[in-house]
Amino acid sequence: MRISQLSAESGVAIPTIKFYLREGLLPQGEQTSATRAEYDQSHLRRLRLIRALLEVGRLPVAVIRKIIEAVEDEGTDIHGMLGTAHYALSPAPEPVPDDEDWRSAREIVDHLVADLDWHRVHPDAPTRDELAQTLVTLKHLGMPATRDDLLPYARAADTLVKEHDIRKIPLDGPRDTTVEALVICQVLYGKAFDALRRLAQESESARHFSTRPPADCAAAPEKGPSDEE
Amino acid sequence: MRISQLSAESGVAIPTIKFYLREGLLPQGEQTSATRAEYDQSHLRRLRLIRALLEVGRLPVAVIRKIIEAVEDEGTDIHGMLGTAHYALSPAPEPVPDDEDWRSAREIVDHLVADLDWHRVHPDAPTRDELAQTLVTLKHLGMPATRDDLLPYARAADTLVKEHDIRKIPLDGPRDTTVEALVICQVLYGKAFDALRRLAQESESARHFSTRPPADCAAAPEKGPSDEE
Repeated sequence: MRISQLSAESGVAIPTIKFYLREGLLPQGEQTSATRAEYDQSHLRRLRLIRALLEVGRLPVAVIRKIIEAVEDEGTDIHGMLGTAHYALSPAPEPVPDDEDWRSAREIVDHLVADLDWHRVHPDAPTRDELAQTLVTLKHLGMPATRDDLLPYARAADTLVKEHDIRKIPLDGPRDTTVEALVICQVLYGKAFDALRRLAQESESARHFSTRPPADCAAAPEKGPSDEE
Repeated sequence: MRISQLSAESGVAIPTIKFYLREGLLPQGEQTSATRAEYDQSHLRRLRLIRALLEVGRLPVAVIRKIIEAVEDEGTDIHGMLGTAHYALSPAPEPVPDDEDWRSAREIVDHLVADLDWHRVHPDAPTRDELAQTLVTLKHLGMPATRDDLLPYARAADTLVKEHDIRKIPLDGPRDTTVEALVICQVLYGKAFDALRRLAQESESARHFSTRPPADCAAAPEKGPSDEE
């Protein structure tokens, strides 16, 4: 297809497509004359991936380029390719302090990883440090942050990922599509879970603490009563 | 105690304490002479709450003032008070589009809320719209977003909140302390769960997709192999 059709089918404006071509994010089409190039389904898939990385992952172009290099390098196995996207989507790790609290938090994390049989997680995965940092903050604020406190959360995460997240990633398709699904699944199912947890919290809070009847127990005090749908 | 001791015990600098006094976030101490005021444990608790809202919740001062008004208004029950903090910590809801996709996503959310017996959640809770918006985005990107897809995530959230989150909120203490625990629990346990989910994902990805032996299956391709601890 011509660039105009690629734009129509992908919903990406022609100047933006040309920018991706210049940046090397989108492979050049097949040159059919001095001024014309032909594009195919692989270009459409790549535009979908770029859109997911930009709009869902909110990643900068330099990081997107790195992920696309891993997608294009057939020598990088699927785990390595997914890992590049995976780490790029994680919050930047904070500097690791050299103190006793941090070391003991990091030990809790390593024990949890062993408890859950996650021994394939890289020993230097920044996610380990990130979790240890959160445990240190919890402890400094006087909140429970032991291995036992974390274990039920770790078990729930393990079950959701093994039984549900992983099934949403197509394994036998093109590499672009696999990474696109990982990004969408990690970011959007993460957002969905967070919203579900807040709904459950509002429900529990109303059940335990509200002194008003259910239809009126708005958590938002500025809102008037309204009927259940 | 004098303001200097309040500063020493709370770790909050005197000019910052004076700013909170001027802003009405911290109640005035008891004036013992023209230039001296006495502070007590309630001021220490309030400073802890302000710190949690600022540093953990990353909320602006105007929002913190609203939460503190709910804490100070004994006519607001605990559910209403927690709800004020709860909604303030949620992402700002996006404008609700008037289209078929959005209506059917919102219906899925309302059904889920009923399935989980969360009927005490306010019918106009912004969290419902927020979740519906995420479902619309998933659907537009071609990812699964039906009630059945969401149900296991909702059940996991329900169990974690009922059996664990809620126990971390002290019920019989001062109102400041209850809100402080809610903020810390919601934000930091949310962060911890997100990190745990990413650890589980890395582990599953390595199990299914890595072509290298475990000790070497770094998700980060730029990192060399290293021994398990």
